[in-house]
Amino acid sequence: MPDSSDQSLEADVFARDCSSRTTLQNVTGRWGSLVLIALGESNYRFGELRRRVDGVSERMLSQTLQNLERDGMLVRTVHEVIPPKVEYHLTPLGRQVANQLQGLIDLVQHNMPAVREAQAEYDARQGERA
Amino acid sequence: MPDSSDQSLEADVFARDCSSRTTLQNVTGRWGSLVLIALGESNYRFGELRRRVDGVSERMLSQTLQNLERDGMLVRTVHEVIPPKVEYHLTPLGRQVANQLQGLIDLVQHNMPAVREAQAEYDARQGERA
Repeated sequence: MPDSSDQSLEADVFARDCSSRTTLQNVTGRWGSLVLIALGESNYRFGELRRRVDGVSERMLSQTLQNLERDGMLVRTVHEVIPPKVEYHLTPLGRQVANQLQGLIDLVQHNMPAVREAQAEYDARQGERA
Repeated sequence: MPDSSDQSLEADVFARDCSSRTTLQNVTGRWGSLVLIALGESNYRFGELRRRVDGVSERMLSQTLQNLERDGMLVRTVHEVIPPKVEYHLTPLGRQVANQLQGLIDLVQHNMPAVREAQAEYDARQGERA
Protein backbone atom coordinates (compact mmCIF):
# COMPACT_ATOMS: atom_id res chain seq x y z
CA MET A 1 0.00 0.00 0.00
CA PRO A 2 1.10 3.48 -0.88
CA ASP A 3 2.54 6.49 0.74
CA SER A 4 0.16 9.01 2.25
CA SER A 5 -2.86 9.46 4.52
CA ASP A 6 -6.12 7.79 3.63
CA GLN A 7 -5.54 5.77 0.52
CA SER A 8 -8.71 3.75 1.19
CA LEU A 9 -9.83 0.84 -0.93
CA GLU A 10 -9.72 2.35 -4.31
CA ALA A 11 -6.22 3.77 -4.15
CA ASP A 12 -5.07 0.23 -3.59
CA VAL A 13 -5.46 -1.11 -7.08
CA PHE A 14 -3.79 1.95 -8.56
CA ALA A 15 -0.58 1.30 -6.64
CA ARG A 16 1.83 -0.60 -8.81
CA ASP A 17 3.00 -3.00 -6.13
CA CYS A 18 -0.29 -3.82 -4.47
CA SER A 19 -1.10 -7.53 -4.61
CA SER A 20 -4.76 -6.78 -5.41
CA ARG A 21 -3.64 -5.56 -8.81
CA THR A 22 -2.20 -8.99 -9.62
CA THR A 23 -5.34 -10.76 -8.39
CA LEU A 24 -7.48 -8.41 -10.46
CA GLN A 25 -5.36 -9.24 -13.49
CA ASN A 26 -5.71 -12.94 -12.84
CA VAL A 27 -9.51 -12.74 -12.85
CA THR A 28 -9.90 -10.23 -15.69
CA GLY A 29 -7.08 -11.51 -17.89
CA ARG A 30 -7.69 -12.89 -21.36
CA TRP A 31 -8.02 -16.49 -20.15
CA GLY A 32 -8.76 -16.03 -16.46
CA SER A 33 -12.06 -14.29 -17.17
CA LEU A 34 -13.22 -16.96 -19.63
CA VAL A 35 -12.22 -19.81 -17.27
CA LEU A 36 -14.18 -18.23 -14.40
CA ILE A 37 -17.27 -17.73 -16.56
CA ALA A 38 -17.03 -21.28 -17.91
CA LEU A 39 -16.76 -22.72 -14.39
CA GLY A 40 -19.76 -20.59 -13.45
CA GLU A 41 -21.78 -22.73 -15.86
CA SER A 42 -20.54 -26.09 -14.69
CA ASN A 43 -17.60 -27.97 -13.20
CA TYR A 44 -15.15 -29.02 -15.87
CA ARG A 45 -12.22 -31.35 -16.39
CA PHE A 46 -9.08 -29.96 -17.98
CA GLY A 47 -9.77 -31.20 -21.50
CA GLU A 48 -13.39 -30.08 -21.41
CA LEU A 49 -12.37 -26.64 -20.27
CA ARG A 50 -9.81 -26.41 -23.03
CA ARG A 51 -12.50 -27.10 -25.61
CA ARG A 52 -14.89 -24.62 -23.97
CA VAL A 53 -12.35 -21.78 -23.94
CA ASP A 54 -11.68 -21.69 -27.64
CA GLY A 55 -8.07 -20.90 -28.57
CA VAL A 56 -6.29 -21.38 -25.25
CA SER A 57 -3.09 -23.44 -25.31
CA GLU A 58 -2.54 -26.29 -22.87
CA ARG A 59 0.28 -24.39 -21.20
CA MET A 60 -1.70 -21.15 -20.81
CA LEU A 61 -4.76 -22.96 -19.46
CA SER A 62 -2.61 -24.80 -16.94
CA GLN A 63 -0.96 -21.55 -15.80
CA THR A 64 -4.34 -19.78 -15.62
CA LEU A 65 -5.83 -22.55 -13.48
CA GLN A 66 -2.86 -22.47 -11.12
CA ASN A 67 -3.15 -18.70 -10.66
CA LEU A 68 -6.87 -18.90 -9.98
CA GLU A 69 -6.42 -21.82 -7.58
CA ARG A 70 -3.67 -19.97 -5.72
CA ASP A 71 -5.94 -16.90 -5.36
CA GLY A 72 -8.69 -19.06 -3.87
CA MET A 73 -11.07 -18.69 -6.84
CA LEU A 74 -11.28 -22.37 -7.71
CA VAL A 75 -10.53 -25.81 -6.32
CA ARG A 76 -8.83 -28.64 -8.14
CA THR A 77 -10.17 -32.02 -7.07
CA VAL A 78 -8.48 -35.31 -7.93
CA HIS A 79 -10.86 -38.26 -7.94
CA GLU A 80 -8.94 -41.48 -7.33
CA VAL A 81 -10.35 -43.54 -10.15
CA ILE A 82 -8.64 -45.20 -13.10
CA PRO A 83 -7.71 -43.15 -15.03
CA PRO A 84 -7.57 -40.38 -12.38
CA LYS A 85 -10.20 -37.73 -12.88
CA VAL A 86 -9.21 -34.11 -12.17
CA GLU A 87 -12.03 -31.63 -11.90
CA TYR A 88 -12.18 -27.89 -11.32
CA HIS A 89 -14.94 -26.01 -9.55
CA LEU A 90 -15.42 -22.48 -8.24
CA THR A 91 -15.15 -21.51 -4.57
CA PRO A 92 -17.90 -19.23 -3.17
CA LEU A 93 -15.54 -16.27 -3.77
CA GLY A 94 -14.84 -17.47 -7.31
CA ARG A 95 -18.57 -17.65 -7.93
CA GLN A 96 -19.10 -14.07 -6.74
CA VAL A 97 -16.30 -12.89 -9.01
CA ALA A 98 -17.68 -14.91 -11.94
CA ASN A 99 -21.13 -13.34 -11.46
CA GLN A 100 -19.67 -9.86 -11.43
CA LEU A 101 -17.60 -10.63 -14.51
CA GLN A 102 -20.66 -12.03 -16.24
CA GLY A 103 -22.39 -8.69 -15.71
CA LEU A 104 -19.47 -6.94 -17.37
CA ILE A 105 -19.40 -9.37 -20.28
CA ASP A 106 -23.17 -9.05 -20.80
CA LEU A 107 -22.79 -5.28 -20.87
CA VAL A 108 -19.98 -5.41 -23.44
CA GLN A 109 -21.74 -7.96 -25.63
CA HIS A 110 -25.02 -6.13 -25.47
CA ASN A 111 -23.28 -2.95 -26.67
CA MET A 112 -21.17 -4.45 -29.44
CA PRO A 113 -23.23 -2.77 -32.20
CA ALA A 114 -22.38 0.63 -30.66
CA VAL A 115 -18.75 -0.42 -30.22
CA ARG A 116 -18.48 -1.48 -33.87
CA GLU A 117 -19.98 1.82 -34.96
CA ALA A 118 -17.46 3.74 -32.84
CA GLN A 119 -14.65 1.67 -34.34
CA ALA A 120 -15.77 2.39 -37.89
CA GLU A 121 -15.93 6.13 -37.15
CA TYR A 122 -12.51 6.09 -35.50
CA ASP A 123 -10.96 4.22 -38.41
CA ALA A 124 -12.54 6.65 -40.90
CA ARG A 125 -11.02 9.59 -38.96
CA GLN A 126 -7.61 7.90 -39.00
CA GLY A 127 -7.97 7.29 -42.73
CA GLU A 128 -8.67 11.00 -43.34
CA ARG A 129 -5.55 11.96 -41.42
CA ALA A 130 -3.29 9.54 -43.32
CA MET B 1 -26.56 -19.58 -15.83
CA PRO B 2 -27.32 -21.44 -19.03
CA ASP B 3 -26.34 -24.77 -20.47
CA SER B 4 -27.44 -25.35 -24.00
CA SER B 5 -30.52 -23.82 -25.59
CA ASP B 6 -29.73 -20.12 -25.58
CA GLN B 7 -26.05 -19.77 -26.41
CA SER B 8 -26.66 -16.34 -27.93
CA LEU B 9 -24.84 -13.82 -25.76
CA GLU B 10 -22.63 -16.09 -23.82
CA ALA B 11 -21.24 -18.23 -26.62
CA ASP B 12 -19.93 -15.12 -28.29
CA VAL B 13 -17.07 -14.20 -26.02
CA PHE B 14 -15.85 -17.79 -25.94
CA ALA B 15 -15.31 -17.82 -29.70
CA ARG B 16 -11.70 -16.99 -30.45
CA ASP B 17 -12.40 -14.68 -33.35
CA CYS B 18 -15.30 -12.71 -31.93
CA SER B 19 -14.60 -9.00 -31.77
CA SER B 20 -16.30 -8.77 -28.37
CA ARG B 21 -13.38 -10.70 -26.92
CA THR B 22 -10.97 -7.96 -27.99
CA THR B 23 -13.20 -5.23 -26.60
CA LEU B 24 -13.51 -7.15 -23.34
CA GLN B 25 -9.73 -7.38 -23.19
CA ASN B 26 -9.38 -3.67 -23.83
CA VAL B 27 -11.62 -2.80 -20.88
CA THR B 28 -10.37 -5.47 -18.47
CA GLY B 29 -6.70 -5.36 -19.41
CA ARG B 30 -3.99 -4.34 -16.96
CA TRP B 31 -4.10 -0.67 -17.97
CA GLY B 32 -7.49 -0.40 -19.64
CA SER B 33 -9.33 -1.21 -16.43
CA LEU B 34 -7.36 1.33 -14.38
CA VAL B 35 -7.80 4.06 -16.99
CA LEU B 36 -11.57 3.52 -17.08
CA ILE B 37 -11.83 3.61 -13.28
CA ALA B 38 -9.66 6.73 -13.11
CA LEU B 39 -11.80 8.51 -15.72
CA GLY B 40 -14.85 7.45 -13.72
CA GLU B 41 -13.55 9.72 -10.95
CA SER B 42 -12.79 12.72 -13.09
CA ASN B 43 -11.70 13.89 -16.52
CA TYR B 44 -7.94 13.84 -16.89
CA ARG B 45 -5.21 15.14 -19.11
CA PHE B 46 -2.56 12.72 -20.33
CA GLY B 47 0.09 13.60 -17.77
CA GLU B 48 -2.39 13.57 -14.89
CA LEU B 49 -3.65 10.18 -15.93
CA ARG B 50 -0.13 8.86 -16.13
CA ARG B 51 0.51 9.92 -12.55
CA ARG B 52 -2.83 8.46 -11.41
CA VAL B 53 -2.20 5.07 -12.99
CA ASP B 54 1.01 4.26 -11.18
CA GLY B 55 3.58 2.36 -13.25
CA VAL B 56 2.18 2.78 -16.76
CA SER B 57 4.64 3.83 -19.45
CA GLU B 58 3.90 6.73 -21.80
CA ARG B 59 3.71 4.33 -24.73
CA MET B 60 1.35 1.89 -23.02
CA LEU B 61 -0.94 4.66 -21.78
CA SER B 62 -1.11 6.14 -25.25
CA GLN B 63 -1.95 2.75 -26.79
CA THR B 64 -4.53 2.05 -24.07
CA LEU B 65 -6.25 5.39 -24.64
CA GLN B 66 -6.36 4.81 -28.38
CA ASN B 67 -7.96 1.37 -27.94
CA LEU B 68 -10.58 2.72 -25.54
CA GLU B 69 -11.32 5.68 -27.78
CA ARG B 70 -11.69 3.41 -30.80
CA ASP B 71 -14.14 1.18 -28.89
CA GLY B 72 -16.24 4.22 -27.99
CA MET B 73 -15.45 4.13 -24.27
CA LEU B 74 -13.87 7.56 -24.06
CA VAL B 75 -13.53 10.81 -25.97
CA ARG B 76 -10.35 12.77 -26.52
CA THR B 77 -10.99 16.50 -26.61
CA VAL B 78 -8.43 19.03 -27.83
CA HIS B 79 -8.94 22.52 -26.39
CA GLU B 80 -7.40 25.12 -28.68
CA VAL B 81 -5.45 27.07 -26.11
CA ILE B 82 -1.75 27.74 -25.79
CA PRO B 83 -0.31 25.28 -25.04
CA PRO B 84 -3.05 22.97 -26.43
CA LYS B 85 -4.93 21.11 -23.74
CA VAL B 86 -5.93 17.51 -24.44
CA GLU B 87 -8.47 15.99 -22.12
CA TYR B 88 -10.06 12.55 -21.84
CA HIS B 89 -13.54 11.79 -20.59
CA LEU B 90 -15.82 8.76 -20.57
CA THR B 91 -18.75 8.27 -22.93
CA PRO B 92 -22.05 7.06 -21.40
CA LEU B 93 -21.07 3.50 -22.42
CA GLY B 94 -17.61 3.94 -20.92
CA ARG B 95 -19.23 5.08 -17.69
CA GLN B 96 -21.46 2.00 -17.54
CA VAL B 97 -18.44 -0.22 -18.12
CA ALA B 98 -16.42 1.68 -15.50
CA ASN B 99 -19.21 1.22 -12.94
CA GLN B 100 -19.39 -2.49 -13.60
CA LEU B 101 -15.60 -2.75 -13.35
CA GLN B 102 -15.65 -0.79 -10.12
CA GLY B 103 -18.00 -3.41 -8.66
CA LEU B 104 -15.55 -6.12 -9.61
CA ILE B 105 -12.59 -4.23 -8.18
CA ASP B 106 -14.45 -3.55 -4.92
CA LEU B 107 -15.25 -7.23 -4.65
CA VAL B 108 -11.62 -8.25 -5.21
CA GLN B 109 -10.23 -5.63 -2.84
CA HIS B 110 -12.77 -6.44 -0.16
CA ASN B 111 -11.74 -10.09 -0.31
CA MET B 112 -7.97 -9.63 -0.40
CA PRO B 113 -7.52 -11.04 3.14
CA ALA B 114 -9.17 -14.31 2.01
CA VAL B 115 -7.11 -14.26 -1.20
CA ARG B 116 -3.86 -13.83 0.74
CA GLU B 117 -4.84 -16.70 3.03
CA ALA B 118 -5.54 -18.94 0.02
CA GLN B 119 -2.18 -17.95 -1.48
CA ALA B 120 -0.31 -18.82 1.71
CA GLU B 121 -2.02 -22.23 1.88
CA TYR B 122 -1.30 -22.91 -1.77
CA ASP B 123 2.36 -21.96 -1.39
CA ALA B 124 2.68 -24.16 1.72
CA ARG B 125 1.26 -27.12 -0.24
CA GLN B 126 3.71 -26.49 -3.08
CA GLY B 127 6.53 -26.30 -0.52
CA GLU B 128 5.58 -29.71 0.90
CA ARG B 129 5.64 -31.24 -2.54
CA ALA B 130 9.07 -29.80 -3.44
